[in-house]
Amino acid sequence: MIERMSALETISILAERNAEGAYITPGGIDSHVHLAQANSPTGDGWETGSRSAVAGGTTTVIAFASQKRSDPSLYPVLEEYHGLSRNLSFCDYGFHFILTNPTPEILREELPVLAAKEGITSVKLYMTYEPMQLSDRELLSIMLACRSLGMTTMIHAENSDMIALIIEGLEAHGNTAPYFHAIARPRIAEDEASYRAISLAELVDAPILIVHMSSETAMGHVRNAQTRLLPVHAETCPQYLFLLSEHLKPHSHDDFEGAKHVCSPPLRHDVKDLEALWQGIANGTFTVFSSDHAPSKYDHSGGKKLGLVDGVARFAKIPNGLPGIETRMALLFNQTEACQPPDKARLGLPKFVQLTATNAAKLYGLGGRKGSIAPGYDADLVIWHPAGKGEVNISQGMLHHGVDYTPFEGMHVRNWPRYTILRGELVWNKDQGGVVGKMGYGQYLRRGKGEVIMGKIGGVPRGMQEHERQYWL
Amino acid sequence: MIERMSALETISILAERNAEGAYITPGGIDSHVHLAQANSPTGDGWETGSRSAVAGGTTTVIAFASQKRSDPSLYPVLEEYHGLSRNLSFCDYGFHFILTNPTPEILREELPVLAAKEGITSVKLYMTYEPMQLSDRELLSIMLACRSLGMTTMIHAENSDMIALIIEGLEAHGNTAPYFHAIARPRIAEDEASYRAISLAELVDAPILIVHMSSETAMGHVRNAQTRLLPVHAETCPQYLFLLSEHLKPHSHDDFEGAKHVCSPPLRHDVKDLEALWQGIANGTFTVFSSDHAPSKYDHSGGKKLGLVDGVARFAKIPNGLPGIETRMALLFNQTEACQPPDKARLGLPKFVQLTATNAAKLYGLGGRKGSIAPGYDADLVIWHPAGKGEVNISQGMLHHGVDYTPFEGMHVRNWPRYTILRGELVWNKDQGGVVGKMGYGQYLRRGKGEVIMGKIGGVPRGMQEHERQYWL
Amino acid sequence: MIERMSALETISILAERNAEGAYITPGGIDSHVHLAQANSPTGDGWETGSRSAVAGGTTTVIAFASQKRSDPSLYPVLEEYHGLSRNLSFCDYGFHFILTNPTPEILREELPVLAAKEGITSVKLYMTYEPMQLSDRELLSIMLACRSLGMTTMIHAENSDMIALIIEGLEAHGNTAPYFHAIARPRIAEDEASYRAISLAELVDAPILIVHMSSETAMGHVRNAQTRLLPVHAETCPQYLFLLSEHLKPHSHDDFEGAKHVCSPPLRHDVKDLEALWQGIANGTFTVFSSDHAPSKYDHSGGKKLGLVDGVARFAKIPNGLPGIETRMALLFNQTEACQPPDKARLGLPKFVQLTATNAAKLYGLGGRKGSIAPGYDADLVIWHPAGKGEVNISQGMLHHGVDYTPFEGMHVRNWPRYTILRGELVWNKDQGGVVGKMGYGQYLRRGKGEVIMGKIGGVPRGMQEHERQYWL
Amino acid sequence: MIERMSALETISILAERNAEGAYITPGGIDSHVHLAQANSPTGDGWETGSRSAVAGGTTTVIAFASQKRSDPSLYPVLEEYHGLSRNLSFCDYGFHFILTNPTPEILREELPVLAAKEGITSVKLYMTYEPMQLSDRELLSIMLACRSLGMTTMIHAENSDMIALIIEGLEAHGNTAPYFHAIARPRIAEDEASYRAISLAELVDAPILIVHMSSETAMGHVRNAQTRLLPVHAETCPQYLFLLSEHLKPHSHDDFEGAKHVCSPPLRHDVKDLEALWQGIANGTFTVFSSDHAPSKYDHSGGKKLGLVDGVARFAKIPNGLPGIETRMALLFNQTEACQPPDKARLGLPKFVQLTATNAAKLYGLGGRKGSIAPGYDADLVIWHPAGKGEVNISQGMLHHGVDYTPFEGMHVRNWPRYTILRGELVWNKDQGGVVGKMGYGQYLRRGKGEVIMGKIGGVPRGMQEHERQYWL
Repeated sequence: MIERMSALETISILAERNAEGAYITPGGIDSHVHLAQANSPTGDGWETGSRSAVAGGTTTVIAFASQKRSDPSLYPVLEEYHGLSRNLSFCDYGFHFILTNPTPEILREELPVLAAKEGITSVKLYMTYEPMQLSDRELLSIMLACRSLGMTTMIHAENSDMIALIIEGLEAHGNTAPYFHAIARPRIAEDEASYRAISLAELVDAPILIVHMSSETAMGHVRNAQTRLLPVHAETCPQYLFLLSEHLKPHSHDDFEGAKHVCSPPLRHDVKDLEALWQGIANGTFTVFSSDHAPSKYDHSGGKKLGLVDGVARFAKIPNGLPGIETRMALLFNQTEACQPPDKARLGLPKFVQLTATNAAKLYGLGGRKGSIAPGYDADLVIWHPAGKGEVNISQGMLHHGVDYTPFEGMHVRNWPRYTILRGELVWNKDQGGVVGKMGYGQYLRRGKGEVIMGKIGGVPRGMQEHERQYWL
Repeated sequence: MIERMSALETISILAERNAEGAYITPGGIDSHVHLAQANSPTGDGWETGSRSAVAGGTTTVIAFASQKRSDPSLYPVLEEYHGLSRNLSFCDYGFHFILTNPTPEILREELPVLAAKEGITSVKLYMTYEPMQLSDRELLSIMLACRSLGMTTMIHAENSDMIALIIEGLEAHGNTAPYFHAIARPRIAEDEASYRAISLAELVDAPILIVHMSSETAMGHVRNAQTRLLPVHAETCPQYLFLLSEHLKPHSHDDFEGAKHVCSPPLRHDVKDLEALWQGIANGTFTVFSSDHAPSKYDHSGGKKLGLVDGVARFAKIPNGLPGIETRMALLFNQTEACQPPDKARLGLPKFVQLTATNAAKLYGLGGRKGSIAPGYDADLVIWHPAGKGEVNISQGMLHHGVDYTPFEGMHVRNWPRYTILRGELVWNKDQGGVVGKMGYGQYLRRGKGEVIMGKIGGVPRGMQEHERQYWL
Repeated sequence: MIERMSALETISILAERNAEGAYITPGGIDSHVHLAQANSPTGDGWETGSRSAVAGGTTTVIAFASQKRSDPSLYPVLEEYHGLSRNLSFCDYGFHFILTNPTPEILREELPVLAAKEGITSVKLYMTYEPMQLSDRELLSIMLACRSLGMTTMIHAENSDMIALIIEGLEAHGNTAPYFHAIARPRIAEDEASYRAISLAELVDAPILIVHMSSETAMGHVRNAQTRLLPVHAETCPQYLFLLSEHLKPHSHDDFEGAKHVCSPPLRHDVKDLEALWQGIANGTFTVFSSDHAPSKYDHSGGKKLGLVDGVARFAKIPNGLPGIETRMALLFNQTEACQPPDKARLGLPKFVQLTATNAAKLYGLGGRKGSIAPGYDADLVIWHPAGKGEVNISQGMLHHGVDYTPFEGMHVRNWPRYTILRGELVWNKDQGGVVGKMGYGQYLRRGKGEVIMGKIGGVPRGMQEHERQYWL
Repeated sequence: MIERMSALETISILAERNAEGAYITPGGIDSHVHLAQANSPTGDGWETGSRSAVAGGTTTVIAFASQKRSDPSLYPVLEEYHGLSRNLSFCDYGFHFILTNPTPEILREELPVLAAKEGITSVKLYMTYEPMQLSDRELLSIMLACRSLGMTTMIHAENSDMIALIIEGLEAHGNTAPYFHAIARPRIAEDEASYRAISLAELVDAPILIVHMSSETAMGHVRNAQTRLLPVHAETCPQYLFLLSEHLKPHSHDDFEGAKHVCSPPLRHDVKDLEALWQGIANGTFTVFSSDHAPSKYDHSGGKKLGLVDGVARFAKIPNGLPGIETRMALLFNQTEACQPPDKARLGLPKFVQLTATNAAKLYGLGGRKGSIAPGYDADLVIWHPAGKGEVNISQGMLHHGVDYTPFEGMHVRNWPRYTILRGELVWNKDQGGVVGKMGYGQYLRRGKGEVIMGKIGGVPRGMQEHERQYWL
């Protein structure tokens, strides 16, 4: 086993051992992960989820501490989530807060303390989902609070009212099979909400990240904002680059199995949708690539099967979200020049590293410590198989998560992390022993202020709001 | 005096009398007029407002019957507004409903009756103003109801929450003078809401008209929608083509006088804003040109002076709206080739006619009767002065409305309606007698279904929503 | 037979006779027709071509008088083309000049005379085709000359050098079958040249018409220019709305038959290309719809078969152009609400009339006389069959042109002109007698100055060139 | 004096010596420099030009070996330019070829040899300037030749015919003062040519760099191409970020002095033009920032004064180009966060390094050796003054070039290179000795294949040309 050592030492030793020329990349950072959340009780907790992470080359995850509407303070929420994760993690980890009840008290008194003392420097906000969604006014207030604290605001952008109208119509027409989930949340709901989120952020000059984008038009809004130097960041996920809504259709043996692919935004209909997102990966529109690991078991009464009501499929009752924490790194690495001939590669290795590790580290306040291979950084590394080795057909059987299926079943990748190293310790050895790290070795990360990656250049005018803001902000 | 006669007879007679070659255009239709509304008690009622209309060349107005939040039914509302106008109007008139409480009962039971029996085939919806604003869900429901009835949906598009945030900030900073009204409602609030309104309409395939547009970016959203053949119409008003926010600044003798120019959206800051809108006039983006006559007296305790609270200016308390029913036709006619040399004209006469009369007639269900000079149409005409005559410097003293100022004071136009003829009767004779029509001659118009002017072509795909709608609509 | 009479008299009489409610539209104007040109010797001359026109509802054609590079003066060219048409035409007609050698003498001395005395107020310019293409400098000089004379400049916009390179490459690879014609002239060649043509026109502030557009991106350049109020007009043709490049592929019985569909720009590959152009028809981007009737016989040694060299197909030798003068009106009428249910119609009747008659009349200096049904206009009319009658399956056997095939063979239309009336005379009676007009009845039209339809509004700034032009123009 | 050593050693030593925390950046690469060219005889040769380079922090320049139209082979051209530079340079250097006569022999036989043996892996092409401009066909042929050799194609994009027309018009109107140079080459000439260059490159799938861009619209074309992943790169220069056309106007003491600011594209008119380009710097549209050092002495009969013909200013005769090799680094560094407060900085230090060194190294085949501070790289460094020191008012007196003026006279920068180190040798010591390097120490660089920085991702479709190219390429 490899001793604990600095990143550079590790690399040089490994470089000797692996004369075969394997690639070494920074340990993955999965900045969008749902673990042990009350609203997805049948999915992964910290033990299975974080084990799955290291087995897939991810050394750091940022999960959610989720405020309920009735929670008047965030402190107990954090306590609860610390309790759910303490001594259970195989990888390093941090928390974003999901804010659902942004009281003035919380914005003015608690966030500064949580940022400074607890190292929680990002929040996630919902524009959809009845129990979580916020009004434009609340979004603006939170953006303003975060702006002064250097916190990053993540936004789930879908127009809630559009979706509610369509669901009502679908149900009235008896169209309730899993597939209609993909009809219920059309691209235009994402397009509108993305445009609105960007407008709100522009008004108050606050950086945002729009999470799990799936629509070309919405992505175009982000690109336009970036052209104008607005600090607008975007995230996408493996499901939006690889999977289509046809997965939601009935399978031969199980009419309800499409429920396994229910996530929001939904899988889109056309291969052109996928191609558009790949273009966004390659041209730099996307800042981070995360899993949105959001697990519910399929064959389990409290999981996806909640959508089977008295034997009748009701897509609107199916818990949203797909597992993907373990497959994320390999799926994207497989599209790089390391695994594909030049005319098939969809991205270069430097962009792979930025999307899976470096950018998330900077954006979420882990810069200087995580996300790069450099002196002074944690020795968090993924060592891939030498070229030509390490092929894998993804299957549920090989994975370590606590969910009972993978939406990427049967997909073939030309490489898989051979070793995962976390702070100099080998935690995953594909050849010998599998997950060799210890539960609880993973540390809680007090994160610093995030670094705005896109657009934040002071001396270049970024729109008409600049001058007027002096009067009211 | 001219006898009652058909339009073509009238013209031929007049053509003889006026060998000087004066232009004759259809009587103006001002489709956006506030008269006798409870929420602007100091402004025009029907007598003064409609007298002002004919004196300015407008023979038809469509005013608002405004539901209060607490009104469970529209029938009494209509009754009330009929009562306020009966036997008082110098011009023909109709009503749009302002919906603020769109109950299922109203949408399902009342609107069809009101459209079929009372000839009210259009509604106006607010995305801003606390007492009137509707949620996206309500907008969608109303659009759907109107869609099946062939009714036109007018939308005031500004993001309410953005504005509320800024007002709060301005007040906290003590920036409450009238000028800050123009800061409180930035272009981005209009841009966002316009994009959202278009998205909502696209989702449900309903025609809309965005009223009183003032922002280049928002206008660009409309143009893009029209390029894609969405049935999206746009309106602008004289104030957004001629006036700038500097009018809101303190005058030498009266610090509060800027209040006279408080309207929403507000006057914009830069001559480039005006130029952009003129481009929209000329390239066909705008469908109608109305006054948004929305009067409150200035020097009157219940009028604009509501914004003077204990002697302190509080812009947020100033009633919104400018008078303009009488000046609308002359201000635009003055920009045509009839009044300007070719290199200065901003529009041709055919477009003048479309914008001031024909399009509104079609859009609001008066086609076949109003808005054109043609056999079978009402003989509603404006006869202008021969070229070189009829110059006017606009001043409050020459106007016939019930408001105590005009925002266009001092502007010079090269022509003014010499005669206004309504259904063959001379109702305005600038040279002799002024308003010579009789109060009560104006008839209530039961309007038919509106005609969609932009984009409504069945066989051309207009976006990705077409196919999916079958499942839920 | 109908007596000669005014348009309105004709209509009222016909309206009586045809109680069945048939549509009456203005006689078609086909403003882009090649007849009796030296470079297409096997196609139509005036007798067959103009007979074909009236049989299809077209009462006016504008054909080309084509200068050869070696012609130092246009006068003999005009004389020659008058000679080829004199006393031969069934329909009224005029000429555009094709300029290939724009000497200063011609631009300065001849064009003004030809415009004022001969009524030739438009020129066509080629950016491609070796024997005809002009440099940017020549295009600019001609635009400037036309600008001051109020002449219209028609431009065939394809990048010649791109095409030459591809043809060289295709031939080197042995790819010379007719289908490769569609590969040899890609959309990007049209896109680039269209952008360039618009830029040149913007520089010198001259109105242009880009002919026979076939590409969505190029059409987008036109739309953007129109948004900015540049006087840029666009034309498309039936082939680009109805036919795809698959027609160029080998047929079962004749490998070379694809040659029948060789035109430039070529037929495009995808139904999305067609849809995009239909959108341009419906949203107003296109100003005129013409046939580009450009005939070469197929089964004839000097016609399309020029492309069979020693039995080997050589697409680059195939004469370009498709016959379509007779089918144009019915093909477009068939897409209106007169023939299609509302959800299938691609355009309204008013737009049909503008595209097939009114706009061409205005643009090419026939306004006031042709293109509308109105007092004082020539009684040029098409009377269609009553709804439900007049269906036709287009076939070569039913047509009157001198070409031996139609590219629209087998297409079905729900109506066809029943009567064509030219200056009050019945010239086509589908039911009785067919072409009943007399050869030579058609008159040569001395056209006046064209009317700029798009964008020519003096008082609205149209770009950055306005101010600077004073120094050099 | 500092010994020769590796980059990292150097840094660590310097870091000790300079406890004050000065910034160290890679030695500048100026990839667009005209030295000792026959067509600018009064400007810099290698001795003065390269001395000026190191004094400004530039350790590598790439200058031009310029083919004359009459040169049938490039070998003698290269020999000539080697002769002009041999043993004269203070900095390392390479050559781009300017191609003006791209014979098949040169493209097929010579370029491969020159690339492989002489290390010349880039060419510059002109779309304007009579003696140099190439047709679209020549541009395409060269792009194709370069594509297969991995060579970079630099393009000067202005529409030559537009400019010729305007110059003719200006001269006819007697508008020949230096200022009219800025009128003669309007933005639209750059916009058109840039769009055309991108289209040509897209057709043949070849990477290009558009040099010295100055127009917002043209820059937008580049941005759109990059969004679509086309391998399109862009360069701008200090003059387009800092200077306006008012510099071309007569000065009080010398009417002709505007000639000092004659370059092409010309300085633009409005501060908005500058702002737009700064936005392109910050959002990543620009790949390199070079000087286009293109010197002609001002007060010298064969220099700028060529434009004074018999005492009359004739702007079209003024040699184009501004000196700027020495001021480039400091002018841009002054806009970074190292010299400006956060709300004034226009770019970050990483982007400064990319724009002034790293990207040019990659693009022009010097990657792995120049442009970065890393193990194995040449120790080419700039050590700046510690913050708060090193302020300079730029003046001709302090510069080392052979030209008699600087267009940046009087501009103030907050820092200036204190030490320049070339391959471990100190060659510039601002405090002691000035240029302390030796003439002839600079080496000729045999460059490798360039690396495409923008867009070159194989697996993402980049437009409609991909599929069709198989038939002809």
